[in-house]
Amino acid sequence: MSPFDLKAWMQVHLDRVEAALSDAIQAESPAALGQAMRYAVLDGGKRLRPLLVLATAEALGDARQSAAALNAACAIELIHAYSLVHDDMPCMDNDVLRRGKPTVHVQFGEAQALLAGDALQTLAFEMLTPQDGSVAASAQATCVALLARASGYQGMAGGQAIDLASVGQRLSEDQLRQMHRLKTGALLLCSVQMGVACVAGLPDAAQTALARFGQALGLAFQVVDDVLDVTADSATLGKTAGKDEAADKPTYVALMGLEAAKAYADDLADQAMQALADTGLPDARLAALRGLTAMVVQRNN
Amino acid sequence: MSPFDLKAWMQVHLDRVEAALSDAIQAESPAALGQAMRYAVLDGGKRLRPLLVLATAEALGDARQSAAALNAACAIELIHAYSLVHDDMPCMDNDVLRRGKPTVHVQFGEAQALLAGDALQTLAFEMLTPQDGSVAASAQATCVALLARASGYQGMAGGQAIDLASVGQRLSEDQLRQMHRLKTGALLLCSVQMGVACVAGLPDAAQTALARFGQALGLAFQVVDDVLDVTADSATLGKTAGKDEAADKPTYVALMGLEAAKAYADDLADQAMQALADTGLPDARLAALRGLTAMVVQRNN
Repeated sequence: MSPFDLKAWMQVHLDRVEAALSDAIQAESPAALGQAMRYAVLDGGKRLRPLLVLATAEALGDARQSAAALNAACAIELIHAYSLVHDDMPCMDNDVLRRGKPTVHVQFGEAQALLAGDALQTLAFEMLTPQDGSVAASAQATCVALLARASGYQGMAGGQAIDLASVGQRLSEDQLRQMHRLKTGALLLCSVQMGVACVAGLPDAAQTALARFGQALGLAFQVVDDVLDVTADSATLGKTAGKDEAADKPTYVALMGLEAAKAYADDLADQAMQALADTGLPDARLAALRGLTAMVVQRNN
Repeated sequence: MSPFDLKAWMQVHLDRVEAALSDAIQAESPAALGQAMRYAVLDGGKRLRPLLVLATAEALGDARQSAAALNAACAIELIHAYSLVHDDMPCMDNDVLRRGKPTVHVQFGEAQALLAGDALQTLAFEMLTPQDGSVAASAQATCVALLARASGYQGMAGGQAIDLASVGQRLSEDQLRQMHRLKTGALLLCSVQMGVACVAGLPDAAQTALARFGQALGLAFQVVDDVLDVTADSATLGKTAGKDEAADKPTYVALMGLEAAKAYADDLADQAMQALADTGLPDARLAALRGLTAMVVQRNN
């Protein structure tokens, strides 16, 4: 058997996600709202969350065969995109650069950005509930339940509220972990959980181990984010670097220092890899998840 | 048989909706986000959309027996509430008074209002997908599909985008109707459609007639809104009166004059009543829908 080619696997699935997202958002739309939405979500971003959904689906079969997994992949990217659009607005982080482009409110105005973010969220739930018989109703309902709980006030939105309230505060490591568990961790874990929900037949022990994987990966992702905010420049990041420190935001680097934060990220990646081994699934099935984990820790943007 | 008591029927169902919404939003929440959400949605509003869901469910049985209908009723009110929170923000309508209280951004700040609106939307989809086995997965998936399509960029959010773009423009009656069909009509029609989806067994002919009913009622509601903006004062409305004219917004009153707009509202109410008769359902089953229709046209706020 030839070794797993992560790049090729990613390209296949990135193309599928991009095409499905583009199909789902018509540029021809009331008052050009679709154009602002397309600007926000197409042609940019690492697409880590959709790739995680698909890599998890791959753990039980060929992810290309699952309409449910493709819908879930698009839906979680739409939630992520909406949160970025709103997060960048003047009343929140007031950021002007995202994925190397002017942010949505800079390009289209604040009111249209607010509406585009709202409608991107709605579209996520629309994509999870196709009415053409391609996905079983039970998988639809489970994915909606998972995504709504992970992104709502007891998930991502709650984490953002903590983030807002914590500027200039000194948080303990526990508080910082709680904020990130909600703000970024909940959606990354949800990516794995939706992937599981899309493929019937995964043993319970494998599901539990995958959930542990999702938690460790989500935390690793955030620690690396904090490290990159200090070590990378804006051009490489595609967004404003150094803004955490400028805004006096609590980060892992501020809490434990740069070198310790780097070591912590590596430790979390090891935990994630161990959880994958604990699924008991064949190595070949886990190659995509392993590759994404390595990518999260080694990325430079 | 005693005559139908609309007030008593409404009170029973308003209490159920209020209790279910209150249960769904914990005040104890990350960074008090739940408190802003509770402020936005509890203890206020006419609750027309949830009552329409429940009155439609009543057309085939006792709406109190349907967990699906109660969830759908709460969900559509949450979507309505989120749209009001965001609509009132400074970058949109910049309004300070809503349901007789300071608007959410005045009370909690813009950032928290943005997040609270986002999380209210998410909660709508969470409420449609209970994981306790109380509602069949097929009804869950259908309601999510209906609500997402009605409130997204090709529905309510699209109508709001047209509204924003049309300030100071002279719209034709067709364009005005299109804007309102999306901005308010889509959710009112969706209330009826979700009610239908929650009660299995409604004949196709009755479903079609109920859809016509929902469309006529939605348009009547908007025409009456435009009339009230001119004829009522802010204290009675619970929101700022005269703001359409002040903002030079296209309205039915601006387009056809006050008396003609009033007559048009009555005509639409007649169409809605006729559609109810066309369902072929027994009169007793239609009493709640008839009562709500009369209320929409005769309301003074």
